[in-house]
Amino acid sequence: MISTSEAGRSTAARAGAVPVVVISARAALRVRQGYPLVARLEVTTPPAGAAEVVWLVERKGAREQLLGSALWCPRGPIAARVLAREPVALERELLRQRIAAADARRQALFAGALPARNAYRVVHGEADLLPGLFVDRYADAAVLQTATAAMDAHEAEIAEVLVETLGVATVVCRDDGSARDLEELPRKKGILRAAGPPTAAAGSLMVRFDDAGSPMEADLLADRKTGSFLDQQENHACAADYARRLHPGGRALDAFCYHGGFALALARAGLSVLACDEDPQAIGRARHNARLGAVQVDFAVHNAFDLLRSLEAAGRRFDVVVLDPPALAKRGLKGPGGPSGAAMRAYKELNLRALRLLAPGGLLVSCSCSGRVSATDFGAMLDDAARDVGRPLQILERRGAGRDHPGLCCMPESEYLKCWLLRAVD
Amino acid sequence: MISTSEAGRSTAARAGAVPVVVISARAALRVRQGYPLVARLEVTTPPAGAAEVVWLVERKGAREQLLGSALWCPRGPIAARVLAREPVALERELLRQRIAAADARRQALFAGALPARNAYRVVHGEADLLPGLFVDRYADAAVLQTATAAMDAHEAEIAEVLVETLGVATVVCRDDGSARDLEELPRKKGILRAAGPPTAAAGSLMVRFDDAGSPMEADLLADRKTGSFLDQQENHACAADYARRLHPGGRALDAFCYHGGFALALARAGLSVLACDEDPQAIGRARHNARLGAVQVDFAVHNAFDLLRSLEAAGRRFDVVVLDPPALAKRGLKGPGGPSGAAMRAYKELNLRALRLLAPGGLLVSCSCSGRVSATDFGAMLDDAARDVGRPLQILERRGAGRDHPGLCCMPESEYLKCWLLRAVD
Repeated sequence: MISTSEAGRSTAARAGAVPVVVISARAALRVRQGYPLVARLEVTTPPAGAAEVVWLVERKGAREQLLGSALWCPRGPIAARVLAREPVALERELLRQRIAAADARRQALFAGALPARNAYRVVHGEADLLPGLFVDRYADAAVLQTATAAMDAHEAEIAEVLVETLGVATVVCRDDGSARDLEELPRKKGILRAAGPPTAAAGSLMVRFDDAGSPMEADLLADRKTGSFLDQQENHACAADYARRLHPGGRALDAFCYHGGFALALARAGLSVLACDEDPQAIGRARHNARLGAVQVDFAVHNAFDLLRSLEAAGRRFDVVVLDPPALAKRGLKGPGGPSGAAMRAYKELNLRALRLLAPGGLLVSCSCSGRVSATDFGAMLDDAARDVGRPLQILERRGAGRDHPGLCCMPESEYLKCWLLRAVD
Repeated sequence: MISTSEAGRSTAARAGAVPVVVISARAALRVRQGYPLVARLEVTTPPAGAAEVVWLVERKGAREQLLGSALWCPRGPIAARVLAREPVALERELLRQRIAAADARRQALFAGALPARNAYRVVHGEADLLPGLFVDRYADAAVLQTATAAMDAHEAEIAEVLVETLGVATVVCRDDGSARDLEELPRKKGILRAAGPPTAAAGSLMVRFDDAGSPMEADLLADRKTGSFLDQQENHACAADYARRLHPGGRALDAFCYHGGFALALARAGLSVLACDEDPQAIGRARHNARLGAVQVDFAVHNAFDLLRSLEAAGRRFDVVVLDPPALAKRGLKGPGGPSGAAMRAYKELNLRALRLLAPGGLLVSCSCSGRVSATDFGAMLDDAARDVGRPLQILERRGAGRDHPGLCCMPESEYLKCWLLRAVD
């Protein structure tokens, strides 16, 4: 909470260069309560000209109360993203402090982990007090993504800070995702800091890292997201741990294997794994990763819906089935309120078919990475599939993204990943 | 799903002694979909006389379709609890098979755990296909609880099966909880099978077991629930693991310590722990448990609300605060729809005060064991407390009861425990 004296001081200091943005009483209350976003509809007075960091104030009669410093977003439905309760600038020292603190939080979480985590999310936006900035580390490379104009403008500086703070040699920007569309930022990607002269083909930057005990390779310039789905690493390890205990030597199916995160972990846990993806390139990389880790996995190019149908028709059964589909709810959205019926029907079909393929006592690992599908939606869909299959199912665990991708309290949109583990009781 | 031929066969077999219960089409649909409870309001034709196991049927014109075998509940709002899709009797062999299968599921989950789990829930009611039966194991003793008339009538037989299946020497019944009130079953407790001649005072049966690495003692006849809160064991271990990583050598507060589950685990993780409970007897036992494990904990008898207020007034701060209150939502219920406002205000006051006591970067371990408080209610309450304290909080993990207390899919009332881990970002 900003004290009156601080507010007074800052109002005086405002004679300087920091533009002021007046917001509604309702938005002011939410900011005071810790919600870090201000909708454009709540802005009463925008900054006079171009602005990067602004001071959010609430006006009560002739009085102004400073609420905090925020990044100004010139375009899109979000107008400001709170940076601090006190007056701060988006300076190198602030970036350095906050990135170092975010990394120290991960180092503490992973202390003593074996094998040591060398790939993890370093900065997770608002939850690390760095709105619109996301940084993933892969061994000696860092990949950053910015989703807001001010952070985008500071990318070169952020790259320097990452080299200095994390000791990485390479920094890549992967600003080619849909998160940029909200503020109408152009999509782009490239190498911001290189370790040396380019050694690979243009448009490609391979890195080797560890994922739940499996050596993996990712192309930081070409693969999805920042190169891999680091948010699933702890779930890969967890699913493999369950599988090792519950179904030693059993049969597993990974219907959307991508580069092999779940499949390789399950194979290392001693299961016999069939892993499919409809993208031949993904299967190629997954095969390569399996060779790197010297594990045996049966890979095949298949559309998951067709695959599940044909396995069922063939009478195949599995002790473990993993469903980690791409965000189905992105397709065919109906308004901002939630996932479309079509998306939820697709999730349900997948899960119903997976449940039918489970051997007695089998384990279903069911994921959704769509932020539009709430945990409540996801649970209702799974209940629905369970009712259709008419099989009793224990809910062993409801997991989300790994702890290096924490949600921010009071900001439900900061969470998106579900990874639930269900066990057939028969 | 029951095939027509099976249904035909069973209708023929019904010439025997099994009473038939006709239920509504709506209830029949839910039973087909795996929901294991039938409300009395959904019963069209109850059994003619006294009944233990009945056959649930749906009547469609002149046709009857068998839905499954169920335990008949002569009293209370629930009339039947589904036992199987096929015709079965509540016989020793069925009990033996299902108890053995339930125990085997736990053995698989805990395989290789160090130290070995010698106290865990063996049977968790409907989620283990044993409606109304709960069994906890403590080393060489088992404690059973029944919440439905038919299981209650079979307690002597169940005790024999537990001795035979689990190899325990002692079996205790703790039918002195409120779960029995639903079916108007009398509250009682006692020793069903004794290892030898009584060695302790009447009304007391001490057992030693391991809880998250701490040796503990419980009185299986006198302590709460079945003697301990086994559903929190995995959360004790998890909280200690976070504390060890995030705050090595730090200061912890356990405001409702009972017999020391969280406090001892935190002390073993190297933290300096202040542990309080308003019950002097609980503190006595917790002290005893600390001596057993040779760990140092600062214990005190305090009401948690007063304690949190006075610690705040004294300017004390803690790196870890644990709130594991008794079910506040039992007090002052308002209708069946959810927790009362008074209960939620009490939860919020506790959590707000705990958040104020957190040192920078501190960890809050916040629990609710009330089934009336849904995860959604609990999250809204925590958001509310976070907004009032105005401190950014990462949500590291949302945990429930241990995996030996699994929920049953489609039966939300099978889940009750929340244990969420939040980290202050400052």
